Amino acid sequence: MTRDDLAAMDAADALSDMRALFDLPDGVIYLDGNSLGPLPAAAPARIASVVSQEWGTGLIRSWNDHGWIDLAARVGDKIARLVGAAQGSVMVADSTSVNIFKLLSAALRMRPERRVILSEAGNFPTDLYIAEGLADLLGRGHTLRTVAPDDILGAIGPDVAVVMLTQVNYHTGHLLDMAEITKAAHHAGALVIWDLAHSAGALPVELGALDVDLAVGCGYKFLNGGPGAPAFLYVAPRLQAEMRYPITGWLGHAAPFAFEPGYRPAHGVVRAVVGTPPVISLSALEVGVDIALCADLGLVRRKSLHMGEVFTNLVAQAGLDVALVTPMAARGSQISLSHPQAYAVMQVLIERGVIGDFRAPDVLRFGMTPLYTRYVDLWDAVWVLADVLASGVWREERFSVRRAVT
Amino acid sequence: MTRDDLAAMDAADALSDMRALFDLPDGVIYLDGNSLGPLPAAAPARIASVVSQEWGTGLIRSWNDHGWIDLAARVGDKIARLVGAAQGSVMVADSTSVNIFKLLSAALRMRPERRVILSEAGNFPTDLYIAEGLADLLGRGHTLRTVAPDDILGAIGPDVAVVMLTQVNYHTGHLLDMAEITKAAHHAGALVIWDLAHSAGALPVELGALDVDLAVGCGYKFLNGGPGAPAFLYVAPRLQAEMRYPITGWLGHAAPFAFEPGYRPAHGVVRAVVGTPPVISLSALEVGVDIALCADLGLVRRKSLHMGEVFTNLVAQAGLDVALVTPMAARGSQISLSHPQAYAVMQVLIERGVIGDFRAPDVLRFGMTPLYTRYVDLWDAVWVLADVLASGVWREERFSVRRAVT
Repeated sequence: MTRDDLAAMDAADALSDMRALFDLPDGVIYLDGNSLGPLPAAAPARIASVVSQEWGTGLIRSWNDHGWIDLAARVGDKIARLVGAAQGSVMVADSTSVNIFKLLSAALRMRPERRVILSEAGNFPTDLYIAEGLADLLGRGHTLRTVAPDDILGAIGPDVAVVMLTQVNYHTGHLLDMAEITKAAHHAGALVIWDLAHSAGALPVELGALDVDLAVGCGYKFLNGGPGAPAFLYVAPRLQAEMRYPITGWLGHAAPFAFEPGYRPAHGVVRAVVGTPPVISLSALEVGVDIALCADLGLVRRKSLHMGEVFTNLVAQAGLDVALVTPMAARGSQISLSHPQAYAVMQVLIERGVIGDFRAPDVLRFGMTPLYTRYVDLWDAVWVLADVLASGVWREERFSVRRAVT
Repeated sequence: MTRDDLAAMDAADALSDMRALFDLPDGVIYLDGNSLGPLPAAAPARIASVVSQEWGTGLIRSWNDHGWIDLAARVGDKIARLVGAAQGSVMVADSTSVNIFKLLSAALRMRPERRVILSEAGNFPTDLYIAEGLADLLGRGHTLRTVAPDDILGAIGPDVAVVMLTQVNYHTGHLLDMAEITKAAHHAGALVIWDLAHSAGALPVELGALDVDLAVGCGYKFLNGGPGAPAFLYVAPRLQAEMRYPITGWLGHAAPFAFEPGYRPAHGVVRAVVGTPPVISLSALEVGVDIALCADLGLVRRKSLHMGEVFTNLVAQAGLDVALVTPMAARGSQISLSHPQAYAVMQVLIERGVIGDFRAPDVLRFGMTPLYTRYVDLWDAVWVLADVLASGVWREERFSVRRAVT
């Protein structure tokens, strides 16, 4: 493969126009959109308008006049279209972690005779921490059982209340079989909670068609909603009336502005809402979601898979001294490579304008984000990586100094 | 009193220069800063810089390079100075409702033998809903006991685990005696949680000097942080090591980026953090807090009390057919008046550019916000109100059509 071959792939790429919808800095190859998506070109103007017109001029009136009160539901309905969910089943709210807490707590209440939360040992830690903390809080003998991905199906026994999994593993990029696991969980009488952090906006997700019970997802990765964008949650319409959430805030009340003394849950997914959403950050998220809705997710998925293949082929072609971590046969939208000094290597790479990220203890993680990543970027990234590895510059002490976020 | 008398008060007002720090729309008298503070003039540029430079150009690197990872603690430390709290005891996080849930849950764990959460019957409903929902979740016989303000002290018995109160009542503006109630609670072995939604930034609060255990507060009222700005929480340094929070998210972990399989709580108030903060909204909040720090809160409080007095005198002078709801001897920074058709009256007032708000069933609420409200604004507002009441225009049907947010 030559760089020209990759340039030809870009020329033939049906998604190549989408890149202009983002404002990407010069001199940077950004392969970290699975950690923080880049700035949509339309976001600054939208945010400025929310700040100066809606907040500045509209003031409190904007809750009605500019629809702030419905914004979380409106963006939720847009996200619903990205994840194969019915209108009225997705709400933007809180952080992914808080949403997991809310859904997991409600799910455990729906399976009072069962005590096991089943998850993957390598799941993103916050999912596991939240489950552990909730079990401890409830004090009713719930346990978190974690297994290897291959052992999930076998571990879904009659004691399992909830199977709580992340569809695409943040570390390895491994894609779990949502259809098969959801079916097995239901067969065993368990509920499922899927964390879509690394799949919403990255690949077609079919929450409705697969009869998924509950899901959460992140706004600032493949949805390009900006740093700390609020998260979302999904509740299957058939479950909404049964849900008893642990955090019963006023915006989940049937009549929040009646200021009734007792809690009376709203109908529908809005019941899962707790407090006032961060309107400015939420508006930025809408811009990112609008872009994702412009793209054909089937095309996005095909390009993402192809890019992963091309990237690993280039790594092989360059003879790099790294090991492939990502299972190529079942993967999301990232390629993870391991190297004993991955932290230092990634610091050098970032200094040279190739931004991926490090995941402890030894992983170099590269996100394939078809809306704005070009094939030639992969070529350039691999050859910078080759140069860095060959030069040994990562052995310099300064690159091993840990920064707050790694 | 004449309008000239009020203009003279403005001319003599030591805080009058502060108004220029806000971008207030023409033709509006804004007496609703206790619901949503106005736009600081410096906010659009700061937000634009966070969006375009920090997010757009810095991308994921800004977690380190622009200090996003420490932003919630940094703004928390600034808020600490406004509420008389030690550095390292306040953190910006989540919504007020979620923070109440976290603190109340941790507080109940510290008083395992006691079963009563004591609050005020007229407390802001979300505080009561959260307590009710938590008691129901735990299923250990906790009850929420609500009493009238005058009965609080007498209700603090040996069964009370937590006294959870809002310092200034959202409806009446009544200011509770934080010193006396905190002392009585401690004397009875209970913990206190104070909700500072209507006091932080409005009057001097002395969390440290009064030995308050726990507190929460709102970012978008007197802190002028923008719509849905993240909230804050306070944990007395002496309690931080004991706190066991119900929602154990990764950013409250001792080493979030080590991605350890088990939860190990961070030291200090950061343990209360759950997920990634909404950086854009959080940055806007910092601008508002910076303004609050420029003002002498003693002066702010004196002007606020004086404005309340002037406002009620004007209402009396105008002979308005409304009743005074706010207890003048112990009040925060608002004046509440009642009128049987308060909803419709407020709609007309807003249409005429005098923005206060309605609180069910019959209250017209006017916030006194000394950083930008002028004495002449009070004159003008009262005379518009007088005109509206006399004209009977609020009887027109269109003004009684309820809008989503009232």
